[in-house]
Amino acid sequence: MQHHAITLLGTGLIGDFYTMTLHGQRGADRVRVVYSRSEERGAAFSDRWGIPEHTTDMEAAIRHPDTDVVIVALPNHLHEEAVAAVAAAGKAVLCTKPLGRDAGEAKRMLEAVERAGVFAGYLEDLCYTPKTLKALRSVAAGALGDVTWVRSRETHPGPHSAWFWDGRLTGGGAIIDLGCHCIEIIRNFVGKGNRPVEVMCHTDTLVHPIDDEDNAIALIRFDSGAIGQFEVSWTFRGGMDLRDEIAGTHGTIWLNHFLRTGFEMFTAGGSGGYVAEKAEAERGWLFPVGDEVSELGYVDMFTDMFDALDGGRTPRETFYDGYVVNAVMDSAYRSAKSGAWERIDLFEWRGAETPRIASHPETYEGLVVIKRETLPDGREKLILKDPGTGDFVDRVVGA
Amino acid sequence: MQHHAITLLGTGLIGDFYTMTLHGQRGADRVRVVYSRSEERGAAFSDRWGIPEHTTDMEAAIRHPDTDVVIVALPNHLHEEAVAAVAAAGKAVLCTKPLGRDAGEAKRMLEAVERAGVFAGYLEDLCYTPKTLKALRSVAAGALGDVTWVRSRETHPGPHSAWFWDGRLTGGGAIIDLGCHCIEIIRNFVGKGNRPVEVMCHTDTLVHPIDDEDNAIALIRFDSGAIGQFEVSWTFRGGMDLRDEIAGTHGTIWLNHFLRTGFEMFTAGGSGGYVAEKAEAERGWLFPVGDEVSELGYVDMFTDMFDALDGGRTPRETFYDGYVVNAVMDSAYRSAKSGAWERIDLFEWRGAETPRIASHPETYEGLVVIKRETLPDGREKLILKDPGTGDFVDRVVGA
Amino acid sequence: MQHHAITLLGTGLIGDFYTMTLHGQRGADRVRVVYSRSEERGAAFSDRWGIPEHTTDMEAAIRHPDTDVVIVALPNHLHEEAVAAVAAAGKAVLCTKPLGRDAGEAKRMLEAVERAGVFAGYLEDLCYTPKTLKALRSVAAGALGDVTWVRSRETHPGPHSAWFWDGRLTGGGAIIDLGCHCIEIIRNFVGKGNRPVEVMCHTDTLVHPIDDEDNAIALIRFDSGAIGQFEVSWTFRGGMDLRDEIAGTHGTIWLNHFLRTGFEMFTAGGSGGYVAEKAEAERGWLFPVGDEVSELGYVDMFTDMFDALDGGRTPRETFYDGYVVNAVMDSAYRSAKSGAWERIDLFEWRGAETPRIASHPETYEGLVVIKRETLPDGREKLILKDPGTGDFVDRVVGA
Amino acid sequence: MQHHAITLLGTGLIGDFYTMTLHGQRGADRVRVVYSRSEERGAAFSDRWGIPEHTTDMEAAIRHPDTDVVIVALPNHLHEEAVAAVAAAGKAVLCTKPLGRDAGEAKRMLEAVERAGVFAGYLEDLCYTPKTLKALRSVAAGALGDVTWVRSRETHPGPHSAWFWDGRLTGGGAIIDLGCHCIEIIRNFVGKGNRPVEVMCHTDTLVHPIDDEDNAIALIRFDSGAIGQFEVSWTFRGGMDLRDEIAGTHGTIWLNHFLRTGFEMFTAGGSGGYVAEKAEAERGWLFPVGDEVSELGYVDMFTDMFDALDGGRTPRETFYDGYVVNAVMDSAYRSAKSGAWERIDLFEWRGAETPRIASHPETYEGLVVIKRETLPDGREKLILKDPGTGDFVDRVVGA
Repeated sequence: MQHHAITLLGTGLIGDFYTMTLHGQRGADRVRVVYSRSEERGAAFSDRWGIPEHTTDMEAAIRHPDTDVVIVALPNHLHEEAVAAVAAAGKAVLCTKPLGRDAGEAKRMLEAVERAGVFAGYLEDLCYTPKTLKALRSVAAGALGDVTWVRSRETHPGPHSAWFWDGRLTGGGAIIDLGCHCIEIIRNFVGKGNRPVEVMCHTDTLVHPIDDEDNAIALIRFDSGAIGQFEVSWTFRGGMDLRDEIAGTHGTIWLNHFLRTGFEMFTAGGSGGYVAEKAEAERGWLFPVGDEVSELGYVDMFTDMFDALDGGRTPRETFYDGYVVNAVMDSAYRSAKSGAWERIDLFEWRGAETPRIASHPETYEGLVVIKRETLPDGREKLILKDPGTGDFVDRVVGA
Repeated sequence: MQHHAITLLGTGLIGDFYTMTLHGQRGADRVRVVYSRSEERGAAFSDRWGIPEHTTDMEAAIRHPDTDVVIVALPNHLHEEAVAAVAAAGKAVLCTKPLGRDAGEAKRMLEAVERAGVFAGYLEDLCYTPKTLKALRSVAAGALGDVTWVRSRETHPGPHSAWFWDGRLTGGGAIIDLGCHCIEIIRNFVGKGNRPVEVMCHTDTLVHPIDDEDNAIALIRFDSGAIGQFEVSWTFRGGMDLRDEIAGTHGTIWLNHFLRTGFEMFTAGGSGGYVAEKAEAERGWLFPVGDEVSELGYVDMFTDMFDALDGGRTPRETFYDGYVVNAVMDSAYRSAKSGAWERIDLFEWRGAETPRIASHPETYEGLVVIKRETLPDGREKLILKDPGTGDFVDRVVGA
Repeated sequence: MQHHAITLLGTGLIGDFYTMTLHGQRGADRVRVVYSRSEERGAAFSDRWGIPEHTTDMEAAIRHPDTDVVIVALPNHLHEEAVAAVAAAGKAVLCTKPLGRDAGEAKRMLEAVERAGVFAGYLEDLCYTPKTLKALRSVAAGALGDVTWVRSRETHPGPHSAWFWDGRLTGGGAIIDLGCHCIEIIRNFVGKGNRPVEVMCHTDTLVHPIDDEDNAIALIRFDSGAIGQFEVSWTFRGGMDLRDEIAGTHGTIWLNHFLRTGFEMFTAGGSGGYVAEKAEAERGWLFPVGDEVSELGYVDMFTDMFDALDGGRTPRETFYDGYVVNAVMDSAYRSAKSGAWERIDLFEWRGAETPRIASHPETYEGLVVIKRETLPDGREKLILKDPGTGDFVDRVVGA
Repeated sequence: MQHHAITLLGTGLIGDFYTMTLHGQRGADRVRVVYSRSEERGAAFSDRWGIPEHTTDMEAAIRHPDTDVVIVALPNHLHEEAVAAVAAAGKAVLCTKPLGRDAGEAKRMLEAVERAGVFAGYLEDLCYTPKTLKALRSVAAGALGDVTWVRSRETHPGPHSAWFWDGRLTGGGAIIDLGCHCIEIIRNFVGKGNRPVEVMCHTDTLVHPIDDEDNAIALIRFDSGAIGQFEVSWTFRGGMDLRDEIAGTHGTIWLNHFLRTGFEMFTAGGSGGYVAEKAEAERGWLFPVGDEVSELGYVDMFTDMFDALDGGRTPRETFYDGYVVNAVMDSAYRSAKSGAWERIDLFEWRGAETPRIASHPETYEGLVVIKRETLPDGREKLILKDPGTGDFVDRVVGA
């Protein structure tokens, strides 16, 4: 294991989460220099996290002689420029989500790092939550059979920083902010080699006086026939609702990452401090999360990134993944306008062809078995279909 | 309160649930005669529930001199004929869900009872669960503000009886079986006077060797801008998943009617009997429901129906509601074929016009307030938008 | 089924719950006359529930010519006198919990009804919740094996009426108010024929400026070796916490009757009305119960009482049960003073002798099997004890 | 931050958990040499975790020239000897729980490290779970007011290794194995300076054919009046039940560490691998934990230990804490025999004197306020006590 010295670009909330993760729990990798557009915020940030240097010169930060990895934690409209500069400097680059404001930007960033031959990781933390990783292992081991449907939901009352609300800087509204997480979570569960084919999306701006969507729902159809469903909102009341539900032919998984995780508190008089990201109240029933940076995936994400870098392998989440996510979001926005399913355009598909979800009907005395049920007395009831007439019958057979 | 003597048509599972409800808990209303196409099933049913008479003559059952109310608990394709016969007999009629196989049938049934002037109730039990009724009271009292989104989900591993699987008899697949519940639940929460305008639906047949859909998801857009979302499946694994989620501008409600209701049991050696409708296992962790006929709404449903009959008022769920539900399902099937939003055609709209969800932006020093947050030190942070430039800024103001 | 006309004694909160239950859901039994010490409260109560008559003359209410059943819903210190009067009048009597202020009172009430030969039921609603009844059926069918431990917990922030706080009128504090429920729930789960042998109890008055306990915990040892544990408090914050946990040699049951029943609501602006008994807040996350009178057992309780009366059988909860509960509470109070286990004195034990919880050790090659575990590779690991040396060893055996 | 090279003594399940933690997530501290009594197990263990050396010579392992910290992960009866050897070698020592088999052993271990002046940490992981640490911060900040009661529960179907079942080697049964966790969790919540005064305990051996207890429940009374309650069992069915409940004068906290943490899975066909420690099933509804070593506290525990070592401060959990826990367990065993409360004997109390839980009754017009309630109409209802007569009255006052 090598120990990495890091250049961090950006001092917003996500920079705090990243540094809290890296500097927490006896980690060997450290932020060595931080860049902020503001001298004041840079100074405060480096004080807060014990970072040796800060600067307002992004190029100097990227080319700092002691660092080998650069983390891009800037607002969306600055990703492309920053990634290009890191690629030019020949350093490893880790970029926060979404990769670009649209698939065009994302594609150029992908090409930049591939051309430069530098290590590149897509910082999609929610695909790395401990629950998600364990659930993915169970799915890979066949616990659910074929995945038929994935619902990924991320909703809260709206972002904390002004720039998030400005679609010119971000590329959109709640979809760009939250949908990018959901789409990549869905891809992990249906299989990354399972091509997203088309998307149907509804958006609306119901509460906030903004031009972009504060609510959206979409369906994504994959090659196998599986359906992904994302629900995002900046108008949800009650905290941050982060849930995934996965259904398969042989099982079901429900994940709750934030509001119901086995920690429940009632307080009549103030919670005595920070409750949770996007919490809405300080008294009454509250639902804190034990260790947010772990539960939200930051710990496992950086472990994968640095282990991949050390081991010369590809990380779980790549710039290509980020590009695919942007492409799905572009199609979702198109669908919201057209009111119809829209194809997902990819300049290149690096996955596989995925066969249709398997369905091998069983027969019984020449009839197709629709369902088997065990009766209370131990006998079995078959529901059968006559393939000739199309008629259905019940048949009870001995134990 | 009058005491009613009832003719019950049909002896399937739903007939059992209805009679269990009526004859349970000291109720004053009783089934007097039951009709079944099968002499054997009619005899067994009347024995099971202490019903004085059974018959295989539907007309005789309907016109039995001692009964004043007829409950139609027959397969879908027999509803229209039965309702017409009851209307002709001049008796009150209560019909199980869905009202018809399509809106055409439902409209004719509606016209039959209105022409005959008989009392008619639509037996949509899931709109009467105790949780739903209490939640609706909270919504009506303003606890959620304007309702923006309702998700209603009903999924299980598939029906118990052969006829349910035959779309020729039922009118469709999982939408006709389960979606009818979800649509009417959604209508109750967004407001029955809030017109359903259009629907976007995806269906697929992923697991069972049948012609109709075993999975479907749909979005319903209402006049107010609210979105209803139904998820139905005959391939869900783990039992019967019956959940509703309601989001509004000021609050959120989550209802779980079946799998997580505060009753959890682990058993290494068989549960010792009936666990729950559509339960999948008899050992391991099981999640029974205390009193199914109460929790699924049957008790409150019949109370409303008979109280309405006694009081000369309209019940909560009418044949017109059943007709609207059929119309929404017809549009959903059309949308699944066209891949686009489809208008919901109603021969007559008996509700109101509903204004768009209210959004009255507040201003602060000439800027539009996007969001207010309280900081840990008690000061308030405003996120503001300049209506001229479209720029967003943060502003922290004193406590 | 007969229809009963009822005399109700008392117009407090419990009278409201009883009448709401009896007059709800098409029930055939009705309150005919209500007695209150206060003319004003009696008038308001009879208006509220549509009761034909009210009176301030208890004897007249009891002897009202049109009623055949009397419900005693008075403060504890008035139970004995009321029950004696009903017994003298020769009518059926249903008495709220606790039966007496102590076992002496309870015994005299038991003797009064037995001497008079009248039907007598103990209105212990929490032994009749739908969850409890279904759980008891599973236990009876063997789903848990032998019950080893039952925890019953009832805690809230304290009673609503002044008289509850006066130990001279009630017989004690939180134990008398809440422990009586827990003890009888425990008895149902370990088996009513399983004699409660001794009790160890700790009480304290931690928050409220009263003389009686506002917190108590007790262990009850039964004949079989099973342990019952009750936890009661008048200082709990967060609403009313009503939970039971049952452990057996082959399974586990967890029941939550109030705070987590599948109904969750967040509201920023007031709940829009009544939330739940003993709720503490009107905004933030709230946890209402769908139908309180059903979920708290009132519906099934009255069904059992009136069905038993009609059928000439004993109800599930009798005055003898009430007497046993009082005897256990008396011993608990003695133990809290002595700091030691105290025997439970019963003038007569009407149950059985219950054998010690079964333990039939299996042997393997002459060694005692302590535990069997299946390893990931399918083989089995045995933990074995040498009965001669007392040594323990692991042994892995083929699949 | 220094990087530590570690000698690990022991290769059982706990050694695996420790090494998985240390070697996981980019940690800077590594196991350098491992000692096992068995050459074979040592070789397998060092292979599994990439440890450079293994040995069967404990003294050589302890005195290895490259290591500065020794972790004792041996069976209980070997702790004292190992700790003495590490102290003699002058290295930092971290010892797993329980510290000793009884308070005598624990005291001698405490004296050994204090005499030698070496850093010593007590590896009580469950006091370091992320939920516990956050809950403790809320309690410290006053969110619950004064803590009145703590329930800590740890139950499962019994240990995996033979030696755990041999009370001669461990010091007891379920109390020694599980109660040590609960006691220290309770101490953290009531305050470590809050002296545990006396204990009342019930034990029984209900299921397993062993001499020691397989079930125990105890109450611990603290100086402040707070009550700690532990429930431990080796006969629980359904997995590992790890819950804490904390009640205070102003709030409540419920923690569920294992069985209900927001991860729910149903599988019809095997879970596809490891589910969780002490899981009982591989199909049906399963409740995995995302990242066990984090959720069970191992990550934060080692961070605290090594940060304390680096920073020259005392860790959160010390050998003195381990000693206090042993002393409480000794008293619990005595109480189980005597059937009475037993004093907790400490050779030295290093905490404070803690005042009785505060109770400052408020008065209203000369009467003592028992409770305030807000009525639906906005007025306030006071329950008042006349200090002279002891009578209680209700009083409704204007809004």
